[in-house]
Parts: sequence; C-alpha cells; structure tokens
Amino acid sequence: MGDLAGVAVGHWTDAEARTGVTVVILPEGSTASAEVRGGAPATREFDVLAPTATVTRLDAVVLSGGSAFGLASVDGVVSTLAEAGRGFVTAGGVVPIVAGMSLFDLTVGSSQVRPGPAEGAAAAAAALAALPAAAAVAGDPTVGAGGAGGAGGAGGAVGAVGAVGAGTGATVSKWRGRHHAVAGGLVTATVVEGGFSVSALVAVNAFGDVVGHGPVGEPWPSLVPSGEVGAFGADGSAASSAGTNTTLGVIVCDADLTKTECLLLAQGAHDGYARAITPPHCRVDGDAVIAAATGSVSLAGPGDPRRVAQVELLRWMAVRATADALATLADVAPAGPIPWMTPPAEPGS
Amino acid sequence: MGDLAGVAVGHWTDAEARTGVTVVILPEGSTASAEVRGGAPATREFDVLAPTATVTRLDAVVLSGGSAFGLASVDGVVSTLAEAGRGFVTAGGVVPIVAGMSLFDLTVGSSQVRPGPAEGAAAAAAALAALPAAAAVAGDPTVGAGGAGGAGGAGGAVGAVGAVGAGTGATVSKWRGRHHAVAGGLVTATVVEGGFSVSALVAVNAFGDVVGHGPVGEPWPSLVPSGEVGAFGADGSAASSAGTNTTLGVIVCDADLTKTECLLLAQGAHDGYARAITPPHCRVDGDAVIAAATGSVSLAGPGDPRRVAQVELLRWMAVRATADALATLADVAPAGPIPWMTPPAEPGS
Repeated sequence: MGDLAGVAVGHWTDAEARTGVTVVILPEGSTASAEVRGGAPATREFDVLAPTATVTRLDAVVLSGGSAFGLASVDGVVSTLAEAGRGFVTAGGVVPIVAGMSLFDLTVGSSQVRPGPAEGAAAAAAALAALPAAAAVAGDPTVGAGGAGGAGGAGGAVGAVGAVGAGTGATVSKWRGRHHAVAGGLVTATVVEGGFSVSALVAVNAFGDVVGHGPVGEPWPSLVPSGEVGAFGADGSAASSAGTNTTLGVIVCDADLTKTECLLLAQGAHDGYARAITPPHCRVDGDAVIAAATGSVSLAGPGDPRRVAQVELLRWMAVRATADALATLADVAPAGPIPWMTPPAEPGS
Repeated sequence: MGDLAGVAVGHWTDAEARTGVTVVILPEGSTASAEVRGGAPATREFDVLAPTATVTRLDAVVLSGGSAFGLASVDGVVSTLAEAGRGFVTAGGVVPIVAGMSLFDLTVGSSQVRPGPAEGAAAAAAALAALPAAAAVAGDPTVGAGGAGGAGGAGGAVGAVGAVGAGTGATVSKWRGRHHAVAGGLVTATVVEGGFSVSALVAVNAFGDVVGHGPVGEPWPSLVPSGEVGAFGADGSAASSAGTNTTLGVIVCDADLTKTECLLLAQGAHDGYARAITPPHCRVDGDAVIAAATGSVSLAGPGDPRRVAQVELLRWMAVRATADALATLADVAPAGPIPWMTPPAEPGS
C-alpha cells in the first residue's frame, strides 16, 4: 500500500472458485480503529479496535471472501504471525492482534471454496515474504523506507489489484439485478500531502454502482427486472440479497495517531464510500473500514492546536484516498461475464 | 416540509444580527432518532433519541444559531408546546420531547444577539399557527392531507429558505479563509417515491464548500491566506475555527418507522452531506441530523422481507433529499458581502 514503511500486502487467490484472502501486515507500534456502516457486516476483532478498549496495537488486517465462513482465514494469519513472533507479548506467549472482515462471493464461481486457516496463512506468508528482511523479524521496528508497497505470494504480485485476493469474486451494481451486475475487485490509491501519506485498499463488492464503472442512471424501480430484483424491488424479494454484498476498506497512514484519531479516518473513508458508490451503505451491504496508523511521522502534541489541523487534513486525505481508489475500479475490474453459479433469470421473467 | 401531514415549520429571524431559530413541529405519534458526525456539535435531547432509550416520541426539532447559547431557545419551544398540550402525558402534566441542535454564527452580524427562550417560543408559535386548526389541538392526530408545508411567523413565510431562521447567519466555504467564504442558509428538498415521501430541511453553515455554490477547486494548502486560515492551515491556527461551523439537518418521512429505522435515515442524510459538501464532516463542524417518521404510511410488518426493501429505499431517499437540498443553496443563499463582525485580514497579511 503506497510506500508505507513496514506495511506489506499478501494475497491468496482462487481464480476458478472466485474467492480469496488479502492480508495487510502492519509494522510494530501501529494503532487502529474501525467503523461499520453497512447493514450486514461480517467482522472479527472489531471490539478491540474501539477507542475505549485497552489494547492499542494492531498487527494485521484480513480481508476475505467467503462471507461469514471467510472469517476463519484469520485463524491462519494469527498462527503465522505468532510463529513469526509478531504480536502482543504476554507471559503465555505472543498474541497477534488481527482484525478481519469478509464479503459475500458464494454465488460466484464456487460456493464450496471458502478461505479458511490455510488460505489465510498463505496470504500472511506472502505478505511477510514481501517485507524487507529486518522488518520480518519479531519486534524489530526498524523498517527501512523501502518497505514493501504491496506483495505477492500465491496469485499476487506487488501492488496487485482487480481480481486478486479478497476482490477475486467481487461484483457490483447488483441493485440493478444480476443481469446488470459487473465485476468488482480490489482497488487502491494513495494521497500524499502535508508530509503525510494516506493509502486506501478496498475490496469492492457493493450492492450499488461504483463511479465510472458499469451501468449508470437510476435503476430503481422500473429498471430492476422482476425475479432478479435488488433490495429496492417492490415485490419484496430483498431477502434474497440480504448480506450478499459489502465493501471492505483498509486505510493506512504514517502519522502517529491515537485510536480515536484512527476512528476519524475510518469515518472519512466511509465518506469516500458515500461519494463513489450509489446507493451507498445499503442494508444489504456489510460496509466496514479499518484505519491504521504506523506512527512513523509525528503529529503535534495533544495540547497543540496544530494537531486539530493535522487530523482534519488526514481525515480528508482518507476521504480522497478511498474515493480515488474506488474510481480506479473501472480500470482494474476484469471484463467479461460474471460466472454466477445459478445464471440470472431473463429480465422480466 | 414537503407535503407531510401534520408537520409545520416556523421561524424567528433577526436579519440584522444575523441569527435565528427554526422549529419543526411533528404530529402526534412521530418517532425519531439522530446521529452526530461532526467534531464540534451543540445538541440537546439527543440521548433520548437513541434506539435504546425508552421514549419513542418526538414532538419538535429546533435548529438555531447562537452556538451553544442557542440551545436555550429549546426552552421556549418546550413551554409553548406544553401550553398547547402537546407532549408525553404524565401524572405531573404534559412533557414535550423537543430535540435541539445549534450552529455557530456569532462572528456574523452581532455576537450579542443569541436565540433564547423567547425567540424559540416565537418560532414555535409560528409553526403552530401554520398547522390546520385540528392538528394544533392537543393529542389530535387527525391531520388533513393539506398539512402545512412550511410556515411563517416572525420573518418567515411558507416554505421560506435561504437567510431565514437558523440559516440567517450561516456561511460556507470557510476552509478557504473568510475572504473566500460565501453565504449559507436554510435549504429543503423532498423525494417522493414508492408511495413514501422523505423531506430534508438543512441549515448549512459548513466549513467546506457546498456543491454548485461559491468557490471551487482545491483550496488547500496554497490558497488559504495566512492569518485567515481554516483547519487545514499549516500554521496551526485551526483552533480559531474550532466549532465555528456546522450543518444541521432534519429528515421527516411519512412511513411508520421504528427509532432504529429512523437512525438509518439519519445515517443516509450524512451520506448526503458527504456527497454535497467538500470536505465533509470536519472536526470543526458540528454536523448532526435528526430523522423523524410521522407514521401515516404503513410499512410491511417486522417479519416481512419487504420491510428490508422499504427501509433500504427510504434510507436512499434520505441520501437524495439531503444532497438535493444542499444543491439548492446556490439558488437561495443571499448574495453580497458577509457582515463579519471583524473583517477578515487581507490575504497574505
């Protein structure tokens, strides 16, 4: 992600079953918080990210397909990081703090292949392998400025986007009915300003349209074909769409933010969703954002009024990085028909 | 607001001191909830609007200028409604449930004129006077379809917008420095769809720009003149802007929503802010939204999947009504220079 020191991204991708996992490894000392703003989330370890929770560190973020099943992939990331000695040190050993969020891709490709512990471990290993050697060592915060800007592993390459990792089975514009849906995917963008860098990595599986990508105009209500209706269908078939979408975002910046300030950046990312997705934050989306701060760039102190300005700026950079990332979907999403397991009914049938 | 039965709007306006109050009276049986998403709010009775709070009714919403002082205007609205017999019935008499939110306008016109109880009462009386006679009677929910669509009173007229009520002293684009600020004001829009009506009434005093109104382009950092800097200024003078902005919104729909569903509409309105304001939801804004439901149009029952679709639709209508309302600001905001109490320094000085 961007050029953030000590941050590395790894993927496990199943291009045939159309699902995958993306792991973002954070450097030692990173803080984070999170916000859910969709109606059907699948998350893990979000409570420890609350500003009121004691633990301030976050070791990694996991994005996955597989709906609620995909949260099992976090198991493999936790064990891989523990083996690498990364995590919260206790008398009983190292405990990695890893937060996860999953999106629904079970109706694309195969519904039987779901990322689990082994797949999470593969993505975590790919991410660790992408770190400079010094950074991969337990507890060593001395990561060079050349920290990896995205990583490979199974199915991944540095800075891979599109149909990779958690974005492999993603689709968007489903509120128009599946006949009109187009591919989603993994997107990223970075904003550098005022001495800070803010990167967004987003797995886009929205119920709504994404700016610049796919169909445009008001689908609802007349354009939604009966039987393939989205949540706006007057025939009430919304239940079939419940929880089958979701846009997952990770914001990483290099400032030394508190958890509370990270929460503000997560809120900013959701403003980016609101700007680039139509309609945004639906009841059938599980939209969630984790915002992390690596701490390599110091802000003004807590009592310094400049800190208000700096956090304001960083929040606005999170809005822009997220909206900018979403705007790249048209360039990176795979073309061609979506391999629905059950083909959509003909419009009007 | 719109054509919502039993809903009436009244204003108290001081055009010289540039401040005012706007009261929205809701019909008996209305439910409501609210969300704050700015960093510097001034609110009253927001806790009772939480879905977890026992009381479900809301009798009126008060928008005011005067910053935190302006919350005193709610006192006069409460007493006026109590005299009219409107409120929660207890053995100790009627208790009106009135929620308030205020914006900062103290540096425009006069800082010494702040809406208080008398001004709130005047706006409430104007709103009550605008209701059909039957609706103004205590506890009578039989309001005709011709329910007032906005009201007058001191300084107000039916459907008044622009420099009226809480919008009288509002300004926007302050992140560019006061030299580049333009007038804000009160705006409204209604979306009618699927048998429902959703109206937004917004007092716009944003730190950021409002779509289609005033300056455009990236102000920050080079365009912000030193000494008149907004929160993004590298010189750290953000403290001078803290809490001196804010966009206040009221959503009213005619469906019979629960408090939890009202909260979703408030969230939708904030997505409308994110779409129409740049930058949105700043730390120096007190952005808040109250969403109310009058209940005259029945949704499907709690176990019916159509209800998911209906709430999804209503949330999206709240996004659109809010963004549509904000897009009218260019048409209704007063032209001419802003009467700052202390003129802004010359750019660059």
